[in-house]
Amino acid sequence: MNKRLLLAGLALALGAGVTHTALAQVKPDTLVKQRQAAMTLQGKYFGPLAGMAQGKIPYNADTVAMNAALLDALSRMPWDGFVPASKDATMKTAALPAVWSEPDKFKAAQDNFQKAVQALVSVSRGGDEAAQKAAIGGVGKACGGCHQDFREKQ
Amino acid sequence: MNKRLLLAGLALALGAGVTHTALAQVKPDTLVKQRQAAMTLQGKYFGPLAGMAQGKIPYNADTVAMNAALLDALSRMPWDGFVPASKDATMKTAALPAVWSEPDKFKAAQDNFQKAVQALVSVSRGGDEAAQKAAIGGVGKACGGCHQDFREKQ
Repeated sequence: MNKRLLLAGLALALGAGVTHTALAQVKPDTLVKQRQAAMTLQGKYFGPLAGMAQGKIPYNADTVAMNAALLDALSRMPWDGFVPASKDATMKTAALPAVWSEPDKFKAAQDNFQKAVQALVSVSRGGDEAAQKAAIGGVGKACGGCHQDFREKQ
Repeated sequence: MNKRLLLAGLALALGAGVTHTALAQVKPDTLVKQRQAAMTLQGKYFGPLAGMAQGKIPYNADTVAMNAALLDALSRMPWDGFVPASKDATMKTAALPAVWSEPDKFKAAQDNFQKAVQALVSVSRGGDEAAQKAAIGGVGKACGGCHQDFREKQ
């Protein structure tokens, strides 16, 4: 109960939409490493949900709720790493030139993903398996939509 | 308001303490990559808070609240990557042998860190700068305490 109240308050902070890192001091390679880390963890927690939606692994309501909550946080993390300073990175990145040449479209793809995650979050505690699987599909589609245009083919 | 309610519900899921990834299917290198990604992002969001507590960057209550919320999620992520299967990883890891030879002590250090993050979360929306800086110090101490024994010196 205590934890529930705390997170309820924190949700207000999460909605602020402000950059809360000190980007000016961050090295280009660190920017890339951090945004890739966020993508790696999105994969960690989305993977099992995609497996459930595709019928490859058994549906588990607790896992849907937990992973949706973690994706809620993770879905906010990569974007401030896609700043011009990161173009000076020496490490390998799969970001396509379109990230820089089509910023409005890239931002729209980010927003689309975050909305899809929020839609999943909103049904993740309801126990409605069909609605959850549909929302998981929506997140997968949003991931793919952004990767299609802005990430090098893997 | 809607978002606040949703996250309040999700907090219940976050408290479940169950492993919500399909570890059996995950490659050793992926386990290491994922746990390192969680540490990388803990650094991204804790760094500015440490800077505030040390007086190196200006105190910002919104950043404390936001980053504490994100650390709440991130503090739960690395630990299920420290499974025996990860010892077969070919990629470089800074995990010391003590991770495997002193599992109880390692688990205690994880718990200590998570408690310190929860203590920060609990004061992060209160606007009490001194209490927040003290809690930030507690998290930094918990990070260092675990690194001291379980991570190779950087």
